[in-house]
Amino acid sequence: MNKNNFASVPPMGWNSYDYYDTTVNEEQVKANADFMSAHLKEYGWEYVVVDIQWYANKPDAMRDKFQYIPFGKLEIDQYGRLQPDKERFPSSSEGLGFKPLADYIHSLGLKFGIHIMRGIPREAAHNHCSVLGTDVTADMIADPFSICGWNPDMYGVRNTEAGQAYYNSLLQLYADWGVDFIKVDDICNTNMYVNNQYSASHEIEMIYNAIQNCKREIVLSLSPGPALIEKAWHLEKYANMWRITDDFWDSWELLKDMFKRCELWQKHVSKGCYPDCDMLPLGIVGKGFKNERHTQFTKEEQRTMMSLWCMFGSPLMLGAELTKLDKWTLSLLTNKDILSMLTPDCKPKQIEHNEEKALWISYNENTKEQFIGLFNLSEHEKRISINMRDIEEEKNEVNLLELWSKKEWNSEKGVVTAVIKPHDCCIFKVL
Amino acid sequence: MNKNNFASVPPMGWNSYDYYDTTVNEEQVKANADFMSAHLKEYGWEYVVVDIQWYANKPDAMRDKFQYIPFGKLEIDQYGRLQPDKERFPSSSEGLGFKPLADYIHSLGLKFGIHIMRGIPREAAHNHCSVLGTDVTADMIADPFSICGWNPDMYGVRNTEAGQAYYNSLLQLYADWGVDFIKVDDICNTNMYVNNQYSASHEIEMIYNAIQNCKREIVLSLSPGPALIEKAWHLEKYANMWRITDDFWDSWELLKDMFKRCELWQKHVSKGCYPDCDMLPLGIVGKGFKNERHTQFTKEEQRTMMSLWCMFGSPLMLGAELTKLDKWTLSLLTNKDILSMLTPDCKPKQIEHNEEKALWISYNENTKEQFIGLFNLSEHEKRISINMRDIEEEKNEVNLLELWSKKEWNSEKGVVTAVIKPHDCCIFKVL
Amino acid sequence: MNKNNFASVPPMGWNSYDYYDTTVNEEQVKANADFMSAHLKEYGWEYVVVDIQWYANKPDAMRDKFQYIPFGKLEIDQYGRLQPDKERFPSSSEGLGFKPLADYIHSLGLKFGIHIMRGIPREAAHNHCSVLGTDVTADMIADPFSICGWNPDMYGVRNTEAGQAYYNSLLQLYADWGVDFIKVDDICNTNMYVNNQYSASHEIEMIYNAIQNCKREIVLSLSPGPALIEKAWHLEKYANMWRITDDFWDSWELLKDMFKRCELWQKHVSKGCYPDCDMLPLGIVGKGFKNERHTQFTKEEQRTMMSLWCMFGSPLMLGAELTKLDKWTLSLLTNKDILSMLTPDCKPKQIEHNEEKALWISYNENTKEQFIGLFNLSEHEKRISINMRDIEEEKNEVNLLELWSKKEWNSEKGVVTAVIKPHDCCIFKVL
Amino acid sequence: MNKNNFASVPPMGWNSYDYYDTTVNEEQVKANADFMSAHLKEYGWEYVVVDIQWYANKPDAMRDKFQYIPFGKLEIDQYGRLQPDKERFPSSSEGLGFKPLADYIHSLGLKFGIHIMRGIPREAAHNHCSVLGTDVTADMIADPFSICGWNPDMYGVRNTEAGQAYYNSLLQLYADWGVDFIKVDDICNTNMYVNNQYSASHEIEMIYNAIQNCKREIVLSLSPGPALIEKAWHLEKYANMWRITDDFWDSWELLKDMFKRCELWQKHVSKGCYPDCDMLPLGIVGKGFKNERHTQFTKEEQRTMMSLWCMFGSPLMLGAELTKLDKWTLSLLTNKDILSMLTPDCKPKQIEHNEEKALWISYNENTKEQFIGLFNLSEHEKRISINMRDIEEEKNEVNLLELWSKKEWNSEKGVVTAVIKPHDCCIFKVL
Repeated sequence: MNKNNFASVPPMGWNSYDYYDTTVNEEQVKANADFMSAHLKEYGWEYVVVDIQWYANKPDAMRDKFQYIPFGKLEIDQYGRLQPDKERFPSSSEGLGFKPLADYIHSLGLKFGIHIMRGIPREAAHNHCSVLGTDVTADMIADPFSICGWNPDMYGVRNTEAGQAYYNSLLQLYADWGVDFIKVDDICNTNMYVNNQYSASHEIEMIYNAIQNCKREIVLSLSPGPALIEKAWHLEKYANMWRITDDFWDSWELLKDMFKRCELWQKHVSKGCYPDCDMLPLGIVGKGFKNERHTQFTKEEQRTMMSLWCMFGSPLMLGAELTKLDKWTLSLLTNKDILSMLTPDCKPKQIEHNEEKALWISYNENTKEQFIGLFNLSEHEKRISINMRDIEEEKNEVNLLELWSKKEWNSEKGVVTAVIKPHDCCIFKVL
Repeated sequence: MNKNNFASVPPMGWNSYDYYDTTVNEEQVKANADFMSAHLKEYGWEYVVVDIQWYANKPDAMRDKFQYIPFGKLEIDQYGRLQPDKERFPSSSEGLGFKPLADYIHSLGLKFGIHIMRGIPREAAHNHCSVLGTDVTADMIADPFSICGWNPDMYGVRNTEAGQAYYNSLLQLYADWGVDFIKVDDICNTNMYVNNQYSASHEIEMIYNAIQNCKREIVLSLSPGPALIEKAWHLEKYANMWRITDDFWDSWELLKDMFKRCELWQKHVSKGCYPDCDMLPLGIVGKGFKNERHTQFTKEEQRTMMSLWCMFGSPLMLGAELTKLDKWTLSLLTNKDILSMLTPDCKPKQIEHNEEKALWISYNENTKEQFIGLFNLSEHEKRISINMRDIEEEKNEVNLLELWSKKEWNSEKGVVTAVIKPHDCCIFKVL
Repeated sequence: MNKNNFASVPPMGWNSYDYYDTTVNEEQVKANADFMSAHLKEYGWEYVVVDIQWYANKPDAMRDKFQYIPFGKLEIDQYGRLQPDKERFPSSSEGLGFKPLADYIHSLGLKFGIHIMRGIPREAAHNHCSVLGTDVTADMIADPFSICGWNPDMYGVRNTEAGQAYYNSLLQLYADWGVDFIKVDDICNTNMYVNNQYSASHEIEMIYNAIQNCKREIVLSLSPGPALIEKAWHLEKYANMWRITDDFWDSWELLKDMFKRCELWQKHVSKGCYPDCDMLPLGIVGKGFKNERHTQFTKEEQRTMMSLWCMFGSPLMLGAELTKLDKWTLSLLTNKDILSMLTPDCKPKQIEHNEEKALWISYNENTKEQFIGLFNLSEHEKRISINMRDIEEEKNEVNLLELWSKKEWNSEKGVVTAVIKPHDCCIFKVL
Repeated sequence: MNKNNFASVPPMGWNSYDYYDTTVNEEQVKANADFMSAHLKEYGWEYVVVDIQWYANKPDAMRDKFQYIPFGKLEIDQYGRLQPDKERFPSSSEGLGFKPLADYIHSLGLKFGIHIMRGIPREAAHNHCSVLGTDVTADMIADPFSICGWNPDMYGVRNTEAGQAYYNSLLQLYADWGVDFIKVDDICNTNMYVNNQYSASHEIEMIYNAIQNCKREIVLSLSPGPALIEKAWHLEKYANMWRITDDFWDSWELLKDMFKRCELWQKHVSKGCYPDCDMLPLGIVGKGFKNERHTQFTKEEQRTMMSLWCMFGSPLMLGAELTKLDKWTLSLLTNKDILSMLTPDCKPKQIEHNEEKALWISYNENTKEQFIGLFNLSEHEKRISINMRDIEEEKNEVNLLELWSKKEWNSEKGVVTAVIKPHDCCIFKVL
């Protein structure tokens, strides 16, 4: 299996984290999947991803003190593999794991994803659990010095045959369940280890091997960022997507900063290889964090975010509770012209970038379409121009379509100019 | 209790680590104590310290792979407090802990010390052990993100009342045993946390409080180094000694480097407050490390080490197996003139220091004695001088005694000069 | 000459910088000296220091763009030594340099100081000027890679005999003028060289040597900070005072931060050796910076500043234009009780320090007087206590005098408590 | 002019530095050009580049102390522009500059390049020289705080219109001379400024603008490295080549390290944009450095170097004195198969890399040729394999030609294997 074929375009979907934090349950997942199937699927949205701690009992019982309860009760099988919390995911009782839920998602024509922390549960190591199909025990493969800096559940797995056997047993289980996508956390940047932030690189390789071994095309997504540019070649070899920033939320500062990360990673988007700008905190978010709210992004900022993610080629994962999606937000997610840039056939290129503005172009090598993005990063309305020479030497007088407003445009003397509101953008297609 | 009275001079003693690593047993501790009592006590040597993992079963069973076995079997009581390994310390069976051994040491007129790792056993936290005298359990005081970077046994303790209760229960146990000295590890520099190497400062305070609470004068020694000079005031307030380098061994490079550390800490030696240059790897060392050997230090280097430790005012802890001590090494440890500098009455001062040499003086504010140390740090024989003006303005022509050779000396025109072999030193007392 | 005798207490005086920046002239210096002589001298204030660029022609001609004009016109003699700008210091014409002004200051019973940048004028090096008393030229001693990061006038001087000759010629000139104090800049922390901030250590030694050579007791003050604690022993050997922070101005943030620096340097105050908290931006300041203003410090903050500087043992250099001093500020500077702590006989010691408060004590080894400082660093009124056990074991019930309010006080059950306004302090003397 | 057309393949040529250091003269340049024209031109070698300090008088007069004499005598015109040293470049007298030499090089069918330091001579600034075509003087555009950390000749130029005018006057002069290539130094990584190593980015833009302005296609090469990957987009926009390491010399350690740099920059090779591995220290080098020698690289290492540079797509600049080239070295430089990989049509890709080996492939998008490089980075002979699946999914049994030995080869079961000597490589073309 060539992992670059698992996701021939940047994955689009929904993720439970931004709205539910650790608390999502089966019914809620299904409701979001239903909405996606009914309203978004036709635009390319297809993944439904259950995020962190689906294996924890009453994970929010101490939410005022801890996001993840230290030494809390986790659902775990005899081989040290985490299982869905039966209370929140009743269909998993009887030892069926996520299979019933995955079946349901598949029945809607969608794909099913789960989040995992790299490693093996600390509890399994301290209890000397068996590793399936081997005669070793968990304490022999767990590295007590390899922990996550923010979640207390796991120990890293050693780079040994027995360690690989554990990951094989894990991925085989997921394949049996019907998982199509795993978001592995604490692995892309093990930020606890300030001097060795890629300390789990062997676990990336082991998970890749386990996917190959299980014979199911499971998309591999790595978190958290920022990924290290020095490791781009390694990420491209073993993973499908990897986070290029730390957690992204609905703050202009973070959005503005994303332009710097896209600047750095622009050459690294290709089929099956997607630098990941993180989830889209749109619509209603934050309930599980005890801060339910409409996204704090203005409409201008939301356009800018969608445009940058699409021009750059990032995966799109919705953080919104879909069942509460308003009409305007829905329109943002279903702009076919904007979404048409989201393909590895499009080659993005930053033309200019400073504190005040960013200019990007994107060229579809297949359709020969050309796109231009003018972003106003400043705090005031601004006239922003791009010279057609930066795109193609000969074209001077061109007609363009602005893809949000659907207005037609002309370049004058080889220069495309727009007056843009603060934090807003214009995205043109050359006609 | 004023902790500065617990150790009115820098502690002198023996520590099991350099020779035994994790493996020392009761018989061996006693044999070393017997030797100290017979041959060293009269010179001021008095502490007998059992170093790391006295609570571990067969700690060297995997010595080719691990110094400390991950998830290995530890002796631990119902309150999450570690107990001596019964196999190695038979007198501790019947729940007596170290009391019988401490009694024996005390019967020789010596003092008894133990090593501990800061924190609470990971096992206690995962098993939700009770904390003595409280209704909380270990998981509620253990911090799953606070680990040691090189020993897998413990979690750090949170800065709460219940955390203090745990430390109180621990020190009360040690006081009951008759412990006179604790060397707490992974606390002075929590080097795992590169950006916060003093991350366990609250545990220093809690242990200080627990000592005050237990009403026994237990000397508090903190490891490992290098201690942070920014925290000198805090260390001086709560501890008796603290390591100023990482582990010290028999290598000239490390010894030469110690001059830099003493340079930095010279103003911080006072009664009850001793920056610690670490143990003296003299005589026969290394057996537990599978590298039994005579110290690799030359005689010149051994003199230099003893002289620097004494002039600077560091605690002196012998790493040698005492029962194998040769005559020459014994003479090194029993030079009363050299040892006479080891008192906080003596104020050390570095006069000069570069790659080639170091000049130190020390002035005993009580006896008015003056000492001069000339150290040849270079690789060749070297004429080294010090100007009496650097010591006292008026003295010009003085008589001196070199304290290793016992030769008399004269300053000429206010200059004291000696020709010194590489890595060797001359230590003068002004007569 | 023993440099520790040049300044047996922390120097107190006035410096032109905070009010005049680069622009001060002879008349203004004299007016401030006159005021000092009439109103401050009896309290110990004695130095009158002319700060940076007294050698520059019309130094503020481009003040909107540059603090120091690049390649501007400097007064310079044939030996590459800077001379006072004749326009601003008319008495210096006829080649008399600062001698007439120094004579005037001396006639008032005061002492005269000047600021210099380390090194030799760039212009002298490019013009291959002679070095007095040698056959070398300036280009042979100037190091073109050793520049200051913020002032364009000089190159560093190489560590050679000819380099020493240059500094000797410089200090001889200053001695001839009657200079009592030099503040050498860009030398204590050569912050341009991020990886080697003590890169000019040889120039410190050369200037020390040149002072010894000129046979005049010239106090040596080094700027800017922060000085490196690792170099404390070297600074103490060669200099009289050295800055422990970057430039200090009238901002609470900087004042609060000074507690951290004093915490670090508290053991390093002794006769002739003074860590320097920088000038006191009191009264009217800022004219030369085009920002003339009354100090932005509140009265509480001014008390806190004076108290910390005095308890810690910092030199006191007034930044105020003295002729405009208001009565309240004058009273702040003439509180004899507070100033009585400003002697190396007093040993300062920080007892506690966190974001909310700082506790200091000071003990005069000579008079046996004890002082207690309680500082409220928080933003709200706060009850602050100190336990007498932190000072002396036996004293329990003591009477105290608060040195700003002159109110008497009692300790209760061995605890001294005061309710203190935000940013304010209480300073007690034990009676 | 589109700068990407100035150099449609990675430039190949000769540079005077590795052999001559600062000392090269006209006759020597011509002799090397003659050799290139006769023996190398047909293989694509075409640039003849005069490296650093061609403007300095007797630059090696103090070679034992300085590589570049501080405040040494430089040839400079009235507008602050450096001119060739007349003694070494006699044809430049009469004010002709490098025109006669450039004409000679051109007459051989070759191209002429020069090295410059960014900025304006310090001397010009201190002397307030005029800037051609403006009414400003050099002191107004020179930044006294912007210096080079290792060469004392220049100050950086401010980012102003007058600064641009200076660079325009400079490039106009070079265009008039017939310069085809400039290697600008202290600009790609201004390593003096540890916290801002891209501090001269505005000078890159100004030089780019000046080239556009002068209307001559002058290839822009930036030194020294390592270039910052964060600035890749900026370098690609304004320059033709930029160094990705610090100076490269004939040491295996440096060569081995180059694999890490190529790993990082592999996505950044495209037409007109060439990450630069630096000059090839082959044949006889080092004379100007008083260390004339045959390259210390073994033949295996030389093959490895040539193979990496060509597969990766680096410019090739010979450091050897060409007139002394031995036959074997000549054969190394004229291997047409190896050189055929040196085109931006070839897309390089690292497949694997660790301490022991590196695997690279390269695919020519135009000719569809595929290349495989197996590099043995270890110290022992090693069997190294690559799986054809890493190259193309379907090809299994392929025939290959090893390009150094010209031996034919076969893959077995889809695996290409070779036994390779330490530091050596095999480069295959898929037939």
